[in-house]
Amino acid sequence: MSSTIYKTEIQTVAGIGADQVERYLPSLPIETILPAERPQQRAEIAVILATTSRVAHDEKPESTISLLGLSIGNRVILACKEAGIRRFVVVLGDQKERVRAHFDQIAAKYNCNLTFVDAGQGRYGSGASVLATVEEIGDAPFLLLPANHLVEPQLIRAVLSTTGVRQGEVVVAVDHNCNGIFDGDHASKVKLNDGRLRQTNKRLGVFDAADASVLLGTKALFEALEDAEASGRYRLSDGLNLLFERGAARTVDVTGLLWFDVNTPEALREARHRLIADMSGKGEDGFVSRRFNRPISRRISTWLAATHLTPNQITVVSFGLSLIGAALLAVGGGALTIAGGLVVQAASIIDGCDGEIARLKYLASRRGAWLDTMLDRYADTAVVLGITFAHAQAHPGPWVWLSGMVALAGFILAGYSTKEYAIRHDKSYPNDVLNRLKRRDLRLFGIAVGAVCGQPYFAMLALGFLNHVCVFGIMVRGWSLSVSEKTG
Amino acid sequence: MSSTIYKTEIQTVAGIGADQVERYLPSLPIETILPAERPQQRAEIAVILATTSRVAHDEKPESTISLLGLSIGNRVILACKEAGIRRFVVVLGDQKERVRAHFDQIAAKYNCNLTFVDAGQGRYGSGASVLATVEEIGDAPFLLLPANHLVEPQLIRAVLSTTGVRQGEVVVAVDHNCNGIFDGDHASKVKLNDGRLRQTNKRLGVFDAADASVLLGTKALFEALEDAEASGRYRLSDGLNLLFERGAARTVDVTGLLWFDVNTPEALREARHRLIADMSGKGEDGFVSRRFNRPISRRISTWLAATHLTPNQITVVSFGLSLIGAALLAVGGGALTIAGGLVVQAASIIDGCDGEIARLKYLASRRGAWLDTMLDRYADTAVVLGITFAHAQAHPGPWVWLSGMVALAGFILAGYSTKEYAIRHDKSYPNDVLNRLKRRDLRLFGIAVGAVCGQPYFAMLALGFLNHVCVFGIMVRGWSLSVSEKTG
Repeated sequence: MSSTIYKTEIQTVAGIGADQVERYLPSLPIETILPAERPQQRAEIAVILATTSRVAHDEKPESTISLLGLSIGNRVILACKEAGIRRFVVVLGDQKERVRAHFDQIAAKYNCNLTFVDAGQGRYGSGASVLATVEEIGDAPFLLLPANHLVEPQLIRAVLSTTGVRQGEVVVAVDHNCNGIFDGDHASKVKLNDGRLRQTNKRLGVFDAADASVLLGTKALFEALEDAEASGRYRLSDGLNLLFERGAARTVDVTGLLWFDVNTPEALREARHRLIADMSGKGEDGFVSRRFNRPISRRISTWLAATHLTPNQITVVSFGLSLIGAALLAVGGGALTIAGGLVVQAASIIDGCDGEIARLKYLASRRGAWLDTMLDRYADTAVVLGITFAHAQAHPGPWVWLSGMVALAGFILAGYSTKEYAIRHDKSYPNDVLNRLKRRDLRLFGIAVGAVCGQPYFAMLALGFLNHVCVFGIMVRGWSLSVSEKTG
Repeated sequence: MSSTIYKTEIQTVAGIGADQVERYLPSLPIETILPAERPQQRAEIAVILATTSRVAHDEKPESTISLLGLSIGNRVILACKEAGIRRFVVVLGDQKERVRAHFDQIAAKYNCNLTFVDAGQGRYGSGASVLATVEEIGDAPFLLLPANHLVEPQLIRAVLSTTGVRQGEVVVAVDHNCNGIFDGDHASKVKLNDGRLRQTNKRLGVFDAADASVLLGTKALFEALEDAEASGRYRLSDGLNLLFERGAARTVDVTGLLWFDVNTPEALREARHRLIADMSGKGEDGFVSRRFNRPISRRISTWLAATHLTPNQITVVSFGLSLIGAALLAVGGGALTIAGGLVVQAASIIDGCDGEIARLKYLASRRGAWLDTMLDRYADTAVVLGITFAHAQAHPGPWVWLSGMVALAGFILAGYSTKEYAIRHDKSYPNDVLNRLKRRDLRLFGIAVGAVCGQPYFAMLALGFLNHVCVFGIMVRGWSLSVSEKTG
C-alpha cells in the first residue's frame, strides 16, 4: 500500500457515534481505513480492437476506410487523444499487415505512443483478442473500443470521467435510445438493474439499452475473460456476464452522443451524413448562419475535408476574401459593388468552414479560435472603410463619414459587449435575440444584400444602428442581472 | 450526531494495510469514523466589541468617528458583510446609548441583522465582554473583532476561510511584520510554535508576531474565558492563553493586509493616509495613470468621499465630461481645442475616482464595473469623432476620415483583444508593456497633450497606430501561447 493522498466523500451515519468507533480502534490511525473504497484512477491507455472487417463489398479493412478526409481508425485515435488518452494498444487480426501499416502511419503523423498486439495466437473470439493485451496493459485501467466504430470525443470523456468507480469494476457505455440506432439488430443489447449490467448479448430478446461498444476495463476484466475461456466461452460478452454475476459491471449512460458501427456500406453512408450534420457545432449560430450560411458551408467543408487545407488556412482565406470584397466595394460602381457584396457574403460563409473542418478533423484549437475572432474584427473594419469611402466619393460631406464611423463602432462593440459581459459576470452572455441579431452573419448578409441592391452604405448604417441597439440591450441586461452582486 | 455529507482529505499511511485495519473493524461501517476530524463550519456571525473608547481629545466613541465618509464602526460592518458575515452582535459598554444609536442607524441603512448585548452586567474586562454574548451565539462559530479597528475585507476573508480548522479550535489572525505596525507598543504580541499560539500579552518582551485583533471563535473560547474568570483573570488574552495550553489555539498569517487600531488622534490621521493609499487598487494601472492620474484622482476621491455621490454617478459624470471634451474638440480652433483636450484629460482622471470611491466605501459592484467599461468605449468613440470632424473641416479629404476610422478601430480593438484573450485562454492577459501601452489613460493623455499643442488629430493617429501595434503583439502572444493547447 503506497502513501498517496486522495479525496473521498464520507457520509456519516446517524446513530453510531465517534466514541463507539474508537473503542474498536484503540491505536490505529484513522487514515488507514479507506483503501478498499479507493476510486479507480483515470485511464490513459486505449485498447483498440482492429481484428475483424465486415464491410462486404470492399477488400479494405474497415479501420482503413476513409471518411471525410480521415480513416475510421484515424478518427478513433484522434477522438481518444482529444479525450485525454496518452497510449494506444492496437490488437491486430484479419489483414494484419495492412492494418498495422495504416496505424503506423497514423502514429507517425500524430506522434502517438502506439504498440501492436497480435490476437491470433491460438485463441479465438473477441474475448481472446482482449486477453492478448494483458501483458501490455498489466494492472492499469484502460479504455476498450473497436477500430471500426465512429465515436465522438465527448462519449469517451463521459466514460473516462465516470465518478464513483472502484478498483476492480468495469464500466460499460450504454445508449438508452435503442430505436435511434442505425442497424439496431446488429448492436449488442444489455439489461440493466439500477445502473448495473445484467446481461449483454446480441440476441437478447428483452433489453433496456444498447451496448455502445466502449468500456472502461480493469484487470478484473482479464480475470473474467480467462474464467470464461476456461469454460469454453470466448466472447467479450461472456466475460462481461461473469463480471455482472460478480457485481462488478457498471454502466454509464451515453444516450445522445455519437457512436456508430461502420460495418456495412449503408452504415458508412449514414456515418458520413451524421458527421456532416454534426460538424457545425451546437446552437451558437445566428439567424442567417443557421438557415443560409451553414447549408452551403457544410457542402464546402465536405469537399474541403478531402484536401489538406487546415482550419487556420481557411481562416486566412476568408479574411483575404473579406479584404477583396472591401476593395471591390471601395472602388464601387454598379457591377463592382454587387461583386463586392457577393465576395463579402462568400467570406462570411467560408468563415464557417474553418470551425467545421476543425471539428470534422479533430483540429479545434485555442489559437485557431483566437486568430479567427481577431481577423473577423479587422475584416469588418475593412468592409466599413470600403463602403464608406465609396459612398463619400459620390456624396461628399462629413455626415457620410461620421455615420460610417458610428457604424464601425457598433460593429466592433457588438462583439466587445458580450466578451465584456462574460468577464464581468463570470458566465457567457446567453444566445438570446439580441445576441443573434448582432452577430457577424447577419451583418455581412445585410451588407451583401444592400450591395446587390446598389445601396451597401445605407444597409451598413442600418446594421450599425441595429448593433448599437443590441449593445444597449446587452448593457441593460448586464446592469439588471447584477443588481445585488458585489465584487470581491 | 447528524447525518451530513462533507469532504475531507485522507492521507494513507505506508506500512499499514487495509486488511490489517479490517481485523480491528469486523462490522462497523467505515463512514462513522471521522466525526472527530470534522472541520469547523464557516462562521456567519460577527461579534463586534464596541465597549471602550480611548481617542483622547474627542468625546465621541471611536466607532462613531467618521473617516473618509464612513464611521469606523460602519467600516467594520461593511468589511464583514463584504467578507460574507450575515449577522452581527454588537457588545456595548462605554457611552452605550450613543454607540447603540449609531449602530442602529447603520443596520437600518445597510439592512443588517444586528443585535446588541450589554457587557456591563457585573463583569469586567475584555473577556467578560465576549462572555456576555454566549447566549446570543450559542454553539455557532463566530468572528470576533473590535469596533474601533480598521480591517480590510480581505483580512476577514482570510480568517473565515482558514482551512483545516477543527471544531473546538480558535484561530487568531497574526501579523509578522511587527515593525510595520503603527503604535506597535500598544498592540498585543504573540509567540508562535509551528503555527499554534503560545502566549498573547501586550507586555510580552520577546515575541514573533502581533495579534491583529481579529479571531475566529467557538464555544471553546467561552469555556476558556469562564475558566479564566473563575481564577480571577478577566482579559480575552487570559482565555486565549488557556486555549493555548489546551492545544486549541491556531493562527492565520495576515501579514500585508490592512488592520489598524484607531485609538489615538495620530492613529486616526495615519489610518486616513493608509485608506487613501489603498483606494486605487493594486497593480493594473497604466503608465500615465500611476504617475499622473492617480495622485490627482486620489485627492478628488478624498474630497468626494465626504459627499453622497455614488461610484456609478461618478462614472456618468466622467462619461459626460468626455462628451463635452469631444464636442469642444469637434468645434475646434485654438482655445476650444486646448479646452477640449483638458476636459478629456479631466474625464480620464475622474474615470479613476469611481473605482476609488467604490473601494473606499465598500461599494464595488459588477454592474458598476460593467457600466464603466462600456461607457468608456462610447466616450472614446465620441472623442475620435470630434477630433476627426474638426480636422476634416480644415483639411477636407477622404484620407483624413479613413485614418480617423482606423484609429477608432485601434482604440476599441485594444480593449477587445485582451477580453478575447481572457476568454479564449481562460486567464487574464498579463499586465505587460503591450497591455499598459494600449490602456485608456495613455490614449487620452496623448490626445490631451496633442490638443494643448494644437495637433489633437495627429496625436490621435499616433495613438491609434500604437494601439494597432499592441493588438498585433497581443495576437502574436495569444497565438504563441496556445501552440499545443487544444479545445474541448
